[in-house]
Amino acid sequence: MASELAALLQEIMDIESVSGNERELADLVEARLSGLDHLEVFRDGDCVVARTGLGLGERVVIAGHLDTVALLDNLPSRYEERPEGDVVWGRGACDMKGGVAVMLRLAEEITEPSRDLTWIFYDHEEVDAARNGLGRLSRNRPDLIEADFAILMEPTSAQIEGGCQGTIRVELVTTGTAAHSARAWMGVNAIHALAPALDTLAAYVSEEIEVEGLVYREGLNAVGVSGGVATNMIPPSAVLSINYRYAPDKSADEALARIEAWFPGYELHVTDSSPAARPGLDRQLAREFVTAVGAEAHPKYGWTDVARFSELGVPAVNYGPGDPSYAHRADEFCPVADLDTCAAALRRFLS
Amino acid sequence: MASELAALLQEIMDIESVSGNERELADLVEARLSGLDHLEVFRDGDCVVARTGLGLGERVVIAGHLDTVALLDNLPSRYEERPEGDVVWGRGACDMKGGVAVMLRLAEEITEPSRDLTWIFYDHEEVDAARNGLGRLSRNRPDLIEADFAILMEPTSAQIEGGCQGTIRVELVTTGTAAHSARAWMGVNAIHALAPALDTLAAYVSEEIEVEGLVYREGLNAVGVSGGVATNMIPPSAVLSINYRYAPDKSADEALARIEAWFPGYELHVTDSSPAARPGLDRQLAREFVTAVGAEAHPKYGWTDVARFSELGVPAVNYGPGDPSYAHRADEFCPVADLDTCAAALRRFLS
Repeated sequence: MASELAALLQEIMDIESVSGNERELADLVEARLSGLDHLEVFRDGDCVVARTGLGLGERVVIAGHLDTVALLDNLPSRYEERPEGDVVWGRGACDMKGGVAVMLRLAEEITEPSRDLTWIFYDHEEVDAARNGLGRLSRNRPDLIEADFAILMEPTSAQIEGGCQGTIRVELVTTGTAAHSARAWMGVNAIHALAPALDTLAAYVSEEIEVEGLVYREGLNAVGVSGGVATNMIPPSAVLSINYRYAPDKSADEALARIEAWFPGYELHVTDSSPAARPGLDRQLAREFVTAVGAEAHPKYGWTDVARFSELGVPAVNYGPGDPSYAHRADEFCPVADLDTCAAALRRFLS
Repeated sequence: MASELAALLQEIMDIESVSGNERELADLVEARLSGLDHLEVFRDGDCVVARTGLGLGERVVIAGHLDTVALLDNLPSRYEERPEGDVVWGRGACDMKGGVAVMLRLAEEITEPSRDLTWIFYDHEEVDAARNGLGRLSRNRPDLIEADFAILMEPTSAQIEGGCQGTIRVELVTTGTAAHSARAWMGVNAIHALAPALDTLAAYVSEEIEVEGLVYREGLNAVGVSGGVATNMIPPSAVLSINYRYAPDKSADEALARIEAWFPGYELHVTDSSPAARPGLDRQLAREFVTAVGAEAHPKYGWTDVARFSELGVPAVNYGPGDPSYAHRADEFCPVADLDTCAAALRRFLS
């Protein structure tokens, strides 16, 4: 079984699909699933959706993206025997064609599922959010995304990672008055005006927040600062870019309210905001999934597309083969054992 | 008299001499002064030095630069009658061909001075210090700069401005550890490490320091800040550029020591350092100059070439026609009355 999944993973990887170039791989997925009696297949751009329609009362979405980040001389794929276990090496092995291989195999194999299934293979995940294929599908065909539970097969080393933290970025802008630095008292120094904000950031202690049994860890950080016009001029403006990563007990609005409370009196501009996703582990289907996988659930600190399901009221978890810390690296790989583990767990849950 | 000086100023202005293009104007100065019995003329590049050699025991330098900053559609010059008094308008009127006109006229006129005179017309003042013509002359012919007192005819609105403040700039560098901002605790934020330094800057109160009867006003300011690599990354480094303007009671080393005391534990790199100049108003010649001018002496906050004389042990003051706040502006001008005032005062002092 493992070798069959590894071979499928290599076949998928060797169809290069850097974001924007997903067509050939989407065609392959569509072709393989279109001929099957138990699935109805839809296409939206280079997003392929395959659904069972057995009227089982409950529906589970399993989703994964077809695209990868740019190549770093890491295709074609290689099968490698390593002391710690065999791996498939190359672009996409980890993020996330291992998950796509498991999805494609199980979509074909599970003809009589225990709940109705929606398999979503989508495009443009590794680029700016506006082009995200799952986002586009939710606008074009929201009915195709409806479900009671969603599994996003991003790499988690075959562990369950529940929900995801939200992220919001603001630019804190200070305004002063330019003057020659030999006569500083004629001006107002906008960089000096950042001092209270930096004090708040330096004094911040990361909060740990439990949501549905998972402990999230928040973060409040400056990610950029700039100011100054000339070396002999009192700077008339400065900008501090602040990123707040917050637990899924808060909405995006609540996160912004906390930022406003931390930095009173400052001019703030939101430049980026992606809501958190609750893990949804209080739902019956999620509990059954955890039992079927037989693994402990962990919190997801980073932001992923599970938040899109959460926004639609669908509880979602991250679960897939591959160590996420290797994502986007030139030497990314997927342990063959992870493919097997994930396929077996999903087979238990879905059959 | 006023109209004669204004005409000379316009003649000098209409010979464009943006830094690097001083030759034609230097040639004019050299030609006018070379034929005179009472002066010995020297040339060093586009610097012209004219000296009396009467063995009078005391020597006064009067210096001014021939170059201007770039044109802003402000040549040829114009003579304008304004309600507040006639002016000459155009590039160099203020900074500092008004002073050069007075110098040239008096160098020709004062054939029997009360102390020996050295007139220095120099190049490349408006560019980086390494190319400064007065600096070059002090290296090539230090004997030509020796004097008991120096008058730099930079614009001061015909007021005496004594000495000049020193300026030192340092880059304060912080180092952290990069990490994904979703896992901030894996990294160390270099921007946050700027907080104590900004607190010191924000709390700084300008010190007023009396030197030889003049009250200088110091300044400590951030003039630039930068940091941050990507909006989802904990910044591994940040740089704060700090400018300290200090009174002439301190050497450059003492100024640096104060900066080191203000910012303990930080990595500091000196990027620029120009020493202060004492006003020298405790000297007999300087007191006589103040009496001859009949004006109160003020401190000079900015840095000027008087510091070069001060380094050679020659007390120096700034004194010249034109409002310094118009220097480098497109609409710079010189009041004709200032030309008259300065010429009359120098005639009293030098004759």
